[in-house]
Amino acid sequence: MQLMTCRDLSKSKVGRCYYCPIIDDQAGIINDPVVLKLSEEKWWISIADSDVILFAKGLAIGNNFNVKIVEPNVDIMAVQGPKSFKLMEKVFGEKITKLKFFGFDYFDFQGTKHLIAQSGWSKQGGYEIYVENTKSGLELYDHLFDVGKEFNIKPGCPNLIERIESALLSYGNDMDNSDNPFECGFEKYVNLETEANFLGKERLKKIKSEGVKRKLKGIKIDAKEINLSSSLDVKDEKGSKIGELRSACYSPHFGKVIGIAMMNKSFWEVSQSVKIQINNNTFNGKVCDLPFI
Amino acid sequence: MQLMTCRDLSKSKVGRCYYCPIIDDQAGIINDPVVLKLSEEKWWISIADSDVILFAKGLAIGNNFNVKIVEPNVDIMAVQGPKSFKLMEKVFGEKITKLKFFGFDYFDFQGTKHLIAQSGWSKQGGYEIYVENTKSGLELYDHLFDVGKEFNIKPGCPNLIERIESALLSYGNDMDNSDNPFECGFEKYVNLETEANFLGKERLKKIKSEGVKRKLKGIKIDAKEINLSSSLDVKDEKGSKIGELRSACYSPHFGKVIGIAMMNKSFWEVSQSVKIQINNNTFNGKVCDLPFI
Repeated sequence: MQLMTCRDLSKSKVGRCYYCPIIDDQAGIINDPVVLKLSEEKWWISIADSDVILFAKGLAIGNNFNVKIVEPNVDIMAVQGPKSFKLMEKVFGEKITKLKFFGFDYFDFQGTKHLIAQSGWSKQGGYEIYVENTKSGLELYDHLFDVGKEFNIKPGCPNLIERIESALLSYGNDMDNSDNPFECGFEKYVNLETEANFLGKERLKKIKSEGVKRKLKGIKIDAKEINLSSSLDVKDEKGSKIGELRSACYSPHFGKVIGIAMMNKSFWEVSQSVKIQINNNTFNGKVCDLPFI
Repeated sequence: MQLMTCRDLSKSKVGRCYYCPIIDDQAGIINDPVVLKLSEEKWWISIADSDVILFAKGLAIGNNFNVKIVEPNVDIMAVQGPKSFKLMEKVFGEKITKLKFFGFDYFDFQGTKHLIAQSGWSKQGGYEIYVENTKSGLELYDHLFDVGKEFNIKPGCPNLIERIESALLSYGNDMDNSDNPFECGFEKYVNLETEANFLGKERLKKIKSEGVKRKLKGIKIDAKEINLSSSLDVKDEKGSKIGELRSACYSPHFGKVIGIAMMNKSFWEVSQSVKIQINNNTFNGKVCDLPFI
């Protein structure tokens, strides 16, 4: 696990989750999972959209490591939002209120233990239930909806607007293997002053000393709608490409389109003007910091 | 490339495509790409749905190989069907008629070279154009539709019925990392009597000497429709699970549902009776060999 991430895990604790960029030997990002330390010798890697298991297998085989790499039969059920705390307390008792952010523990539901973490892909807080026992998980799902009636519980999915406003990055959209952690604002998850050995460490030292030439920034665009199917060029006043818009949505909060873009260094300053062509119209935009809110 | 596949590539030739199961050290299948030998030192791996590039990178890093592994910007445009030969001759001239099955070469279109192979994910024959120059590729697409009018050319996608009838396996559906090549009928792509070194070789020798206990077989089911969202249990007369139906469709040719199933050894014989529950009804089925047609 340590070999694959630039985050120092030497002081990691059992029962805790860690957001860990996984990078290759060139410091290109391969995934940005939440990693759960189940025991000193067992980790779960809760991945974004790429087959990290194949990277781990290749590394283990090539290095002749004595390690077992398997895909466990786990489905994650996310209970999210400000009311999730009261709901989960009703179902699992007071013990679950003691769970800290990014902590996890096992909780009983009708005789079956479920691993539950205080985590989730929203900024509203909540829990993720790692369902290993499918039958019990289905019963728990129904039970959550019964007990959740008073909280107006509803099925849902990650909210694109909220995730962009709060700059919850999405692997495969905002970043991919051609980007490094410094370009994506992951400085706090890069530990170079450590004895931990990981792929890309020397490369990251070099990148850090030279400084990156592009970085993910926010852009507010004077448009009312956008439907990104692939990235869009961000241009300067003269029409030269200065960046790449990778995610975008209409934000009711700002009353305009906002997006996440990989921007050249000379366009990092807040409020700089940029141009973006959406369909056949050119719109004005302004650079800003991430997150938007 | 050789390290990742159980197929002996020692006699492979530049300008040829090779169907190569990629396996791990436990002989579990990771992908089943068509591999193109571009030069003695350069390969393209045209993959099914899994991130083979991550496996390759892990292996290369772990073994400290001097190899460059990149995802080229290539889009495959498939021109398939019996009329594709005449059409492509009209566009690229007589030279393309000399291309043999699984051969490839470069062909000129309005001054741009395109790599074209005689291959494709159908049993009807045709070509795959590996588009590196997107602009020219789009022009070529339009040109194919202009010239193709007389052949009644239409946009299309892989035909589920045809691919099941002809047992064109689909990685992620019919097989995954928990299956080995012998279980999937890939004997002819497994070369154990060779000096070539590849992952899982010793494991495959053991599997071969012991014999596999399950294998992909065809099943014809006395039902008129099916919509598989995940695999279905195949049961014997007594209700015990004896296999797993992984792909299925209604076949107009047979007037019934046909499917591809991983079957236990005692149920490999043709015409054995099995039971399959679709929604809440139990249907009778008969085991058969693959391909169906």
